[in-house]
Amino acid sequence: MKQNVLIIGAGGVAQVVAHKCAQNNDVLGDIHIASRTLDKCEAILESVREKGAMKQEGVLEAHEVNALDVPALVALINKTGVQIVINVGTAFVNMSVMDACIETGAAYIDTAIHEEPDKICETPPWYANYEWKKRDLCAEKGVTAILGAGFDPGVVNAFARFAIDEYMDEVKSIDIIDINAGNHGKYFATNFDPEINFREFTGTVYSWQEGEWKENKMFEVGQVWDLPVVGPSQSYMSGHDEVHSLATNYPHADVRFWMGFGDHYINVFTVLKSLGLLSEQPVTTAEGLEVVPLKVVKAVLPDPASLAPNYTGKTCIGDLVKGIKDGKETEVFLYNVADHKDAYNEVGSQGISYTAGVPPVAAAMLVATGEWDAKTMKNVEELDPKPFFTILDRIGLPTRVQVGGIGGEDKAWNE
Amino acid sequence: MKQNVLIIGAGGVAQVVAHKCAQNNDVLGDIHIASRTLDKCEAILESVREKGAMKQEGVLEAHEVNALDVPALVALINKTGVQIVINVGTAFVNMSVMDACIETGAAYIDTAIHEEPDKICETPPWYANYEWKKRDLCAEKGVTAILGAGFDPGVVNAFARFAIDEYMDEVKSIDIIDINAGNHGKYFATNFDPEINFREFTGTVYSWQEGEWKENKMFEVGQVWDLPVVGPSQSYMSGHDEVHSLATNYPHADVRFWMGFGDHYINVFTVLKSLGLLSEQPVTTAEGLEVVPLKVVKAVLPDPASLAPNYTGKTCIGDLVKGIKDGKETEVFLYNVADHKDAYNEVGSQGISYTAGVPPVAAAMLVATGEWDAKTMKNVEELDPKPFFTILDRIGLPTRVQVGGIGGEDKAWNE
Repeated sequence: MKQNVLIIGAGGVAQVVAHKCAQNNDVLGDIHIASRTLDKCEAILESVREKGAMKQEGVLEAHEVNALDVPALVALINKTGVQIVINVGTAFVNMSVMDACIETGAAYIDTAIHEEPDKICETPPWYANYEWKKRDLCAEKGVTAILGAGFDPGVVNAFARFAIDEYMDEVKSIDIIDINAGNHGKYFATNFDPEINFREFTGTVYSWQEGEWKENKMFEVGQVWDLPVVGPSQSYMSGHDEVHSLATNYPHADVRFWMGFGDHYINVFTVLKSLGLLSEQPVTTAEGLEVVPLKVVKAVLPDPASLAPNYTGKTCIGDLVKGIKDGKETEVFLYNVADHKDAYNEVGSQGISYTAGVPPVAAAMLVATGEWDAKTMKNVEELDPKPFFTILDRIGLPTRVQVGGIGGEDKAWNE
Repeated sequence: MKQNVLIIGAGGVAQVVAHKCAQNNDVLGDIHIASRTLDKCEAILESVREKGAMKQEGVLEAHEVNALDVPALVALINKTGVQIVINVGTAFVNMSVMDACIETGAAYIDTAIHEEPDKICETPPWYANYEWKKRDLCAEKGVTAILGAGFDPGVVNAFARFAIDEYMDEVKSIDIIDINAGNHGKYFATNFDPEINFREFTGTVYSWQEGEWKENKMFEVGQVWDLPVVGPSQSYMSGHDEVHSLATNYPHADVRFWMGFGDHYINVFTVLKSLGLLSEQPVTTAEGLEVVPLKVVKAVLPDPASLAPNYTGKTCIGDLVKGIKDGKETEVFLYNVADHKDAYNEVGSQGISYTAGVPPVAAAMLVATGEWDAKTMKNVEELDPKPFFTILDRIGLPTRVQVGGIGGEDKAWNE
C-alpha cells in the first residue's frame, strides 16, 4: 500500500491527471502538483476545485520545482511525504525525476520515453538508452518504476499482453493504430507542444519486423484502417515508444505503430519541413537577428490548450494482434474510443490529453492498492492488464474487443 | 539629347541595367551606379568588366548613396553630371529619387510604382497616390519622368498602345498575362526579394472592369492561357501597376493582369499565409524573442540571386487586346519570350531580372536620342511604342504579334 501522489508537470495532460487523482483521492490520498511555473499548477488546482472533482476532503497543493534538479525533487518528495510520483512533465526530465524516486523510494510512473534536447531518434530499442539502465538499481532498492503508462505507450501495451494471453498460443504481429478523428476547427494546430510534436516526425521511423529493426522515413509507408466508430482512416507507420519495449518482450512478433494523419496535416508539415522552418538550427535574418525557425512556427501556431473548448469528434486507439491459436491463424482487435467534447466537459482538456492522462492515474491506483507495486522497473506489458482495464472502464476509458480482427464480433474485454 | 546615366540600386535588375547600359554606352555616355552598399555596386561593375560588356571605352563608376536622402542624390547627380537616372532600387525610394531629378533637371525612369513600407494596396489608381501628384511640376520644369518602364509595367503598356493604334478603332479589353515557365530546381523560391514578392499577393486584387474598380482576393479568379512556346499556363488575376495607368488612359476598356502560378507555389503560399508566417507583425517566441515571421521565412528561402546559374526554361509575357475594327470584333496578342539560361550567359542574371532590366535601358536610349525626352511625366502607353520595340528587338527582347488573338498568325511586330 502506497499513498499520496506528486504530479510533475502543469500542461494539458497534467490537468487531466490532477482531475482524475482528485476524483480518486479516497484511494490515492494527498495530491501535490509541481512544475517550474507555480501559476500553471495553481490554475489546474483552481479548475479541479471549480469542477468539484475531489471525491473526499483532502490535501491539494501546488509547488514550484525545477524537475531537472534532483536534490530539489528529493526535498519536495520528503517534505510532502508522497509515495507515488506521476511524471507528466516534458520528456526531457524523466531521468532526473526517476533518480529522485530511486533516492527516496517513491514509486515512479511516466507516460513517454526520456529524450535529450539535442538528440532525435536514437538507437533502438530506445528504452535501453536511458530508462532500462536503471532497472537493476530499481530492483536492488525495491523501487517501483512503471514506464510508459499513458495510452500509447501504456494501455496499448496492456492490449497486446491481453490479446496474446487470452486469444493465442503464439503471437505473429502487433499493429498499434492511433487515429484522432477529431476536429479543432483551426486551419492547423498540433495537439501538444509543436516543438515535441514535430520532433516525433522528423527522424527515422523504427519498426520491428522479421526479427530486426527496420528503418523508414515518415509518411513513407501508409495504410488505411476501417476502424469502429471513426471509420476508414489514413495512417502512416511512425516511430513510437511502445514498439521498443514490445519488440523486446515479443521478439518473434512484428511490431509496428500507425499514426493517423490527414492529407492536410501532411501537406502543412511537408511545406514547413521542406522550407527549413522546422529546423532547430538557428538562422540569421537580413537584419542580423538569430532565431530558431521551429520556435517561430511554435509562436504562430495555436496554443494546444486553446483547442479544447471547440474540439469535437472522437479518437480511436487500438491494437490489431495476429497469431496462432490451436494451430490456426487468429486475430483480435482491442480498442478504446474517446470523445473530445466529453473530455472537455469532465476535466477541461481535449481528448488527446484525456487519453494520455487517465491511464497513469489508473496505474497509480494499482500501485496504491499494491496490485502493480512491482518493487522494480516494468513496462506496462509486463504487468497484469486485467485490473488496469477494470479501473479504466470505471474512470473513463473502457476497453472493447473485436474478435476475429477489425470489424469482428464487438464486445467489452471482460464479456 | 541627354547624356550620362546614373543607375540607382544594386540588385539583380540593376545588374542587368548596368550590363545593358555598358553595351550601349556609345549612346548613353558615362555610366554610374549607386546604392547603400558600395560593395554590391562594385561587384556589378566587376561583372560588367568580366563580360567585356562596354561597347567603347568610357566612364564606369560606383558610388555609395542613401536613396531616401534627396540632398545626397542631388549632390551625386551634380557631381557626376548625369542627365538620366534609372531608378531600379527598392520601390520605397521612388519619390525621393524623383524629387532629386526634378531639382536637378535630370530625366527620371523607373520600373515599379512607389510604395510606403507600412502600406499595402492603397486606393486605386495607385499612381495618383504618389507619382502623378508631381506631374504638373515636371511639366512646369520641363523634366522628363517615365514611369513603369520595365517589362510589366512598361513593355506591356507599349504592347497595349500599339495593338489599339494599329489593329482597332475601339478597344474593349486589355488582358496582360505574365507567365514564368522557368525552373530554378529548388523546392521553393521567389524570383525577387521574398518580402516584396509576398507583399504583392497579400492585399486586394484591383482590376478595371465595366468602367469601375473591382476588388478580388488573390487566387480567387483563375484562367488557363494556351500561350506560344510555354503552352497552357495556369494564371490568377493579380494586382499590378500597369492596370492603374491603362485604366486611366483607356477607361472604356476592361483592364486585367494575370500572373502565372503553379499549384505548388500556391500551396506553399497558402500554408505560410494561413499559419501567419507571412505576417509583418512581430510575434514573441516562448523564450521571449520578438521576431517578424516574414523575415524568418525570407531567411530560410534561397537568395533570389543564387537561382540564376541553374535557372532553365522560358518566360512569356504578353497582352491580349480585344476591340472593334471596321465594325467587327477583333483581337491581337503581342508578346515576348525570354530564356533564363540565355539571360544568365549574357548578363549573369535570370530571366525575370532580364525582362525587368532591359526595357528601362531602351527607354534611357530613347531619352538620350530625344525620341522619348518628353519634358513632362509619362506612363509608357503615352509614348510612341515603335522606336521602343525597335531598340528592344536589337538589345534582347523582340516583340512578336499573333493576329486574331492567341494562337493566331504569328509574326514580328513590324512585319
